[in-house]
Amino acid sequence: MKTDQDYMQLALQLAATAKGNTTPNPVVGAVLVKNGVIVGTGLHRKAGEPHAEVHAFNMAGEHANGATLYVTLEPCSHYGKTPPCAKLVIESKVSRVVVATTDPNPSVAGRGIRMIEDAGIEVEVGILEKEARKLNERFIHNMLASRPFVISKFAMTADGKIATHTGHSKWITGEEARHQVHELRDEVDAILVGVGTVLADNPSLTTRLPEREGKNPIRIILDSNLRIPLNSTVLQTEEAKTIIVTSSEVDASKMEAVEEKGATVLAVSKNEHGLNLDEMLSRLYEMGITDILVEGGGEINASFLRAGLINKFFIYIAPKIIGGKNSKTPFTGVDVDTMDDALQLEFDDVEKVGEDLCIVAYPKQGEIK
Amino acid sequence: MKTDQDYMQLALQLAATAKGNTTPNPVVGAVLVKNGVIVGTGLHRKAGEPHAEVHAFNMAGEHANGATLYVTLEPCSHYGKTPPCAKLVIESKVSRVVVATTDPNPSVAGRGIRMIEDAGIEVEVGILEKEARKLNERFIHNMLASRPFVISKFAMTADGKIATHTGHSKWITGEEARHQVHELRDEVDAILVGVGTVLADNPSLTTRLPEREGKNPIRIILDSNLRIPLNSTVLQTEEAKTIIVTSSEVDASKMEAVEEKGATVLAVSKNEHGLNLDEMLSRLYEMGITDILVEGGGEINASFLRAGLINKFFIYIAPKIIGGKNSKTPFTGVDVDTMDDALQLEFDDVEKVGEDLCIVAYPKQGEIK
Repeated sequence: MKTDQDYMQLALQLAATAKGNTTPNPVVGAVLVKNGVIVGTGLHRKAGEPHAEVHAFNMAGEHANGATLYVTLEPCSHYGKTPPCAKLVIESKVSRVVVATTDPNPSVAGRGIRMIEDAGIEVEVGILEKEARKLNERFIHNMLASRPFVISKFAMTADGKIATHTGHSKWITGEEARHQVHELRDEVDAILVGVGTVLADNPSLTTRLPEREGKNPIRIILDSNLRIPLNSTVLQTEEAKTIIVTSSEVDASKMEAVEEKGATVLAVSKNEHGLNLDEMLSRLYEMGITDILVEGGGEINASFLRAGLINKFFIYIAPKIIGGKNSKTPFTGVDVDTMDDALQLEFDDVEKVGEDLCIVAYPKQGEIK
Repeated sequence: MKTDQDYMQLALQLAATAKGNTTPNPVVGAVLVKNGVIVGTGLHRKAGEPHAEVHAFNMAGEHANGATLYVTLEPCSHYGKTPPCAKLVIESKVSRVVVATTDPNPSVAGRGIRMIEDAGIEVEVGILEKEARKLNERFIHNMLASRPFVISKFAMTADGKIATHTGHSKWITGEEARHQVHELRDEVDAILVGVGTVLADNPSLTTRLPEREGKNPIRIILDSNLRIPLNSTVLQTEEAKTIIVTSSEVDASKMEAVEEKGATVLAVSKNEHGLNLDEMLSRLYEMGITDILVEGGGEINASFLRAGLINKFFIYIAPKIIGGKNSKTPFTGVDVDTMDDALQLEFDDVEKVGEDLCIVAYPKQGEIK
């Protein structure tokens, strides 16, 4: 005898298969069950394509009549590219609807459920809610904060160093961990580094996954004084779009020179700590960027940390010790006096990746804000 | 049908129950099996008490005749406080002996096995050998290096800091992790800190395990200039012995003043980096200390690391970020130029302890040397 949890679990699994492909939409899965038999399954594959429920109802046909619908997110209530799913649910005459979590958008949350309940159909909400919210954590953050979801990734030795005193860091982690980072990059809309990384390493910042056809994330370079050399690899390669974020105080002629290279220059105001990252994120979100992988050095990481803008951490730890007072450290520019002032995290997961470890963590106060 | 592995596993479990109590002896477990029935079990409980095999043979009595003996360490071949176990094995007329690992002492390794084989009894060596050697890693190191087994323990934030720039570190980890550290202390003969810790925190350095009757490890304080205040807690409390390690260049009168407080002063030579730790460890081993938990700050940790004297690491990582260029770091005094010069470790285990993580690691080149 399968339970509501079992069917919702399946719906979540279906949803998860589309992770990274539905931007700016959430991932959603749906399962229709009648008399203990699965009569319909579906998932939202891509923005612009049908919602998960539509696929499930198409598959079920008349079998939907009297069935139970399991759906990982509240059915929508608005007329957008498709008619509202709540309407479809009612017309299909299901007898019961089980929803993992409501719409994260506070202005529409509950409307789809109310439409269905008003039609006399029983609705249950909250089955595997935590899992469902985690699966769409990036989307939920987008809806609530109107900002991209910011992921901080850094790799350090077992004594907490991201580079030697000379700046040498190739490589801290092993091949498997570096491959996993390319997968992380593949899942986000954009990756962000400081101009220091461009000046030091002149990287291409594209993903290198042999099994994938290079869908490359947008490259964002923080460069307050627009020091980026015009012959940098990121300005030469066309495999990925490049956005150079600089201060609005910088000479327009300098900005033009960079734009002539095909990059977009985003000029933002400055605050006491440097570029106004809040403003930058809002602007990037308006440009359609829903998540960003920050792969900075200590200064860039610290500026995001200080502004309270990091939503998730991927911390790689290598089985190495380099020691040293002057070795580079993951967050340079903040410096608290007592342990009580530390930023509190929550370790969500720890996994061995090759010989290294990967810790996944969230800021403790509200993993989604 | 139980296998050799199953019975050896049981013998290892029996051995492990005595961990921390057999110093300077190894832990050993023995199981006697006849026709699929366990007829004898035993373990070495404490130095001076009978070996594991003796208990097992006592229990089995005549049933030992024709049985198989599973023993986690090669039976001894020498007349010590007890007659050699190899002789007992032969006299008991077992038909087969299964040994996890040979005696680590190269000068006697294999002798016990040869004695038994020469009596016409089949001997098999190497069943669960890795597990058996790990269980006695401290003893094996003692035998091979004639030095205490040195464990480095430190607690750091998720960005690799052991204290804020002001030196504040109370507390990095949570209660469960701190309790586990007291258990670690309970398992070793001695704990070692620098005089800086005494000057800064004036700790008692005793274990606080409510369920144990304070068997406190010896407290070792590294203090090259003998700066320790005579009213320090470690010189006042008598719950544990205290050894102050200093330079032989220090004034004899200063040493006498400390010894009058009931502590032992151990004077060693100096080398280019400070106190000669190699010499110190040899001397401490002669004094009967078989393992030491080093709970130093960055300088003490670095001096052990630089000298290649750390045998095992317990790295606690707290879900906190404090950042900062001037926050304290686990290994201050070494500073390699490139990643290729890093000390390579092997992560053996990672475990969640309360909200923190504990990584157990070994230096990569030979976990036991």
